[in-house]
Amino acid sequence: MSQPTIKTNPGRYFEDFHPGLILNHATPRTLTDGDAALTLALYGARHALFSSAPFAAACGLAPAPLDPLLVFHTVFGKTVPDISLNAVANLGYAEGRFLASVSAGDTITSTSEVLGVKETSNGKTGVVYVRTTGVNQHGAPVLSYVRWVLVRKRDAAAPAPADSAPKTAPFVPASDLVLPTGLDFSGYDFGLAGAPHAFEDYVVGEKIDHVDGMVVEEAEAQMATRLYQNTAKVHFNQFERAKDPSGRRLVYGGVVISTARGLSFNGLENAGLILGINAGRHVNPYFAGATLFAWSQVLDAQPIPGRSDVGALRLRLVATKDRPCHDFPDKDDAGAYPAEVVLDLDYWAAVPRRGA
Amino acid sequence: MSQPTIKTNPGRYFEDFHPGLILNHATPRTLTDGDAALTLALYGARHALFSSAPFAAACGLAPAPLDPLLVFHTVFGKTVPDISLNAVANLGYAEGRFLASVSAGDTITSTSEVLGVKETSNGKTGVVYVRTTGVNQHGAPVLSYVRWVLVRKRDAAAPAPADSAPKTAPFVPASDLVLPTGLDFSGYDFGLAGAPHAFEDYVVGEKIDHVDGMVVEEAEAQMATRLYQNTAKVHFNQFERAKDPSGRRLVYGGVVISTARGLSFNGLENAGLILGINAGRHVNPYFAGATLFAWSQVLDAQPIPGRSDVGALRLRLVATKDRPCHDFPDKDDAGAYPAEVVLDLDYWAAVPRRGA
Amino acid sequence: MSQPTIKTNPGRYFEDFHPGLILNHATPRTLTDGDAALTLALYGARHALFSSAPFAAACGLAPAPLDPLLVFHTVFGKTVPDISLNAVANLGYAEGRFLASVSAGDTITSTSEVLGVKETSNGKTGVVYVRTTGVNQHGAPVLSYVRWVLVRKRDAAAPAPADSAPKTAPFVPASDLVLPTGLDFSGYDFGLAGAPHAFEDYVVGEKIDHVDGMVVEEAEAQMATRLYQNTAKVHFNQFERAKDPSGRRLVYGGVVISTARGLSFNGLENAGLILGINAGRHVNPYFAGATLFAWSQVLDAQPIPGRSDVGALRLRLVATKDRPCHDFPDKDDAGAYPAEVVLDLDYWAAVPRRGA
Repeated sequence: MSQPTIKTNPGRYFEDFHPGLILNHATPRTLTDGDAALTLALYGARHALFSSAPFAAACGLAPAPLDPLLVFHTVFGKTVPDISLNAVANLGYAEGRFLASVSAGDTITSTSEVLGVKETSNGKTGVVYVRTTGVNQHGAPVLSYVRWVLVRKRDAAAPAPADSAPKTAPFVPASDLVLPTGLDFSGYDFGLAGAPHAFEDYVVGEKIDHVDGMVVEEAEAQMATRLYQNTAKVHFNQFERAKDPSGRRLVYGGVVISTARGLSFNGLENAGLILGINAGRHVNPYFAGATLFAWSQVLDAQPIPGRSDVGALRLRLVATKDRPCHDFPDKDDAGAYPAEVVLDLDYWAAVPRRGA
Repeated sequence: MSQPTIKTNPGRYFEDFHPGLILNHATPRTLTDGDAALTLALYGARHALFSSAPFAAACGLAPAPLDPLLVFHTVFGKTVPDISLNAVANLGYAEGRFLASVSAGDTITSTSEVLGVKETSNGKTGVVYVRTTGVNQHGAPVLSYVRWVLVRKRDAAAPAPADSAPKTAPFVPASDLVLPTGLDFSGYDFGLAGAPHAFEDYVVGEKIDHVDGMVVEEAEAQMATRLYQNTAKVHFNQFERAKDPSGRRLVYGGVVISTARGLSFNGLENAGLILGINAGRHVNPYFAGATLFAWSQVLDAQPIPGRSDVGALRLRLVATKDRPCHDFPDKDDAGAYPAEVVLDLDYWAAVPRRGA
Repeated sequence: MSQPTIKTNPGRYFEDFHPGLILNHATPRTLTDGDAALTLALYGARHALFSSAPFAAACGLAPAPLDPLLVFHTVFGKTVPDISLNAVANLGYAEGRFLASVSAGDTITSTSEVLGVKETSNGKTGVVYVRTTGVNQHGAPVLSYVRWVLVRKRDAAAPAPADSAPKTAPFVPASDLVLPTGLDFSGYDFGLAGAPHAFEDYVVGEKIDHVDGMVVEEAEAQMATRLYQNTAKVHFNQFERAKDPSGRRLVYGGVVISTARGLSFNGLENAGLILGINAGRHVNPYFAGATLFAWSQVLDAQPIPGRSDVGALRLRLVATKDRPCHDFPDKDDAGAYPAEVVLDLDYWAAVPRRGA
């Protein structure tokens, strides 16, 4: 037989990325009611906007929107084969904005542009910065965010490229946030939503212990990660992971984010609609079986120009494993986190105002 | 910063309940095909009415109804934050009636009225009786039942309220059962449904060993319980449960009910349509990993006035863990159950008659 | 009370099968978006045809088809109570053809005809050959395949029936394959689908190591198997299985097939549309927790008469447990498989041609 071509995807190495490179990611994905039900089953989310079509319609959103984090995980999952198959670590997120609602029946594709690269001092790896955009079936962007990952070099002897690392904003300015078309919280039913706390009730600096704890099982972590078509080996290949010092499959960080968000319902019942992601770090690995806890801090509270029905809260969500959060476990002055802290996420959410 | 208000839900204590109190529970829930698929995946139910839209339509039910127990779990789940967050135990059910079919796309909300309270003799807890009603998006009731729970007092020194415990009916009279609108079993296809046994074939007193056994895994129990947005801590917080003598998360009793119902298909293939719940007790705790078995007894068989196509069977469903049911494990004369019995449920189901 | 009839299904024994017997299997099943989402969550499949409705529509398939293996598992599951409840082993498949697309909302029923029987030499068991046909709600066949199973005799002393074992084809001729109505790969978007490899790029004899590995957890195996309403005891009853030398529940072979197919995306991205199943053997048992790997070999490549947009690849899919496939683990000259090989499947898939 003639020599066949290589059929499997070896993934890109650091040398394969250069500023301006456009990556059109594979596997468009139609999200459905099935994905919404699995999202509930996996995270126990209770935000009324994503649980009840009539509630969403009463807020001006018909058809009902899907949980923005489902959109985030879907958009993110598509980038893995092109960006992070040979990644050592996911280092950070910035400048994330949700730009349009996504509803059951909508189809998502993802594209990334390499913003810059910077070799690390050891010469074996480099940081790749990309802006990823999720687009719906009409070509309209639904999500945009910057992410940077540490990627292996194919050849350590290859010369370092010029440092083209971009400067990212420390957080999304409130004035850049985009409300879903049609959103109207003027008749928001706080009772049905589960708590009376309005935008005005949250105080900058306030910390909230979300009290509840929840385990993620291996099966749950795998089902969620597959649902997003995120095929990173560390989440599934136990045979290979047995050689890692942990000996364990690593749970996809997005599962930790969504579980912590589910827990944060207890105290942030009306902050379901995420508008932006300012920053995020997976501080320590999370392995299935540990109990996740979470606490939040209100970092900022901004009105939205021309709107009396809704404001934007900037929230910090910290998740821990096997450690309740009544004492708000946090990094120390040197920026070092306790071993139990697994997530530090900074985001904006739309919260109804109490009204006139 | 000014002192923020408490944001998390501490739950109600015994002193917070009084007869006549109305609780409008949070988080309306639109049920979908996704929930139906998860119900099949979690319990392996095979009743044709809930598996096949054309079969349901041929029985006069279009759109196809969802499994009544999915409706029960959904209605129940919403009551947890308001009623049973500080509960010690769920003591019983009575007077449960399904009042209208629920189909994919329908949205359920729950309301409860406190019927009465009764302090227990130790002065530390009390029993709270509530009637809970599930309502669809048109305001029509779909389910109503009475439940009583043992709830902690906030302050053991608080004086006991007057005993206002209601008398509940020992079972729902057959004449009070409500058939779904349009139901017509006159052309019921026993072959497609999986068994030839009609209403006339069941004999009062008859016992049926359902033979099959099935394990519930932790991931399955958690996914089901989250799907119902039931957030009771005992089902999820392993860190806290490690301090319990069992050291285990407790599986939500509704998961045991639905698994036992799934097993009972083998012998009760045509009794899928539950009309009423007469009584129910979770006799012993069930922890994930044990194999569930089940047996049933026919307690009564009642014609339905004016109907030749359908009758009502009153059935007792007993479930065990790690003990097959060929010898019908049961309570003794003093009412004490073997340690392997986990459920004793008394319900009504609609069963097709053989026809004229 | 009068003596009630036996209500539970004892299953058929070898003596109960004879050539020409028609079995109309129970429980019609309406497949939905919920089943499609669970299929993604359970197997991580990424074939664009089953992931994106617009992609499918651009290939002439609207509404979007469901994964053919979901159809296979659904049709198969219905046969279990009538055919394999007392089976010792599932021996093989042949002559499998997918005859029409199945989309969300379609309802599947199954029928089997006994083709022949042959008692085994020990006189305690016999092989039963059946042709099973899945039909949609319009009565149109969607899948047909032959399967043979080893079934226990009720009475070892019963005389052996005449040998009526049919001859099955070693593989489906390419000329018998049926393309879904409307299929048009002339504008196939290889970029969106995830790889540039067209029909012309695959060489007969070529072997592909799919590289990736994936664990199936007990909860995942059970949820999948229940979704197909396959109630074979070996998959669920741990109490009984504890007496087996393995001490373990056996994972349904279809779960292994679909997981291996999911893995095979890495190298066979454009071969998602299965047209036929030529042969299949579950070579060794698979128990949850082991990591599955897979490799494929191109057995044949056939044009489809009159079509320049699509060809048919005959593929062999071999799956292993806890053994990577870079060295293509295979049977030896005597036909004996290494203990790590769990599946050897021979099938046809439609693959887009590069175009004129």
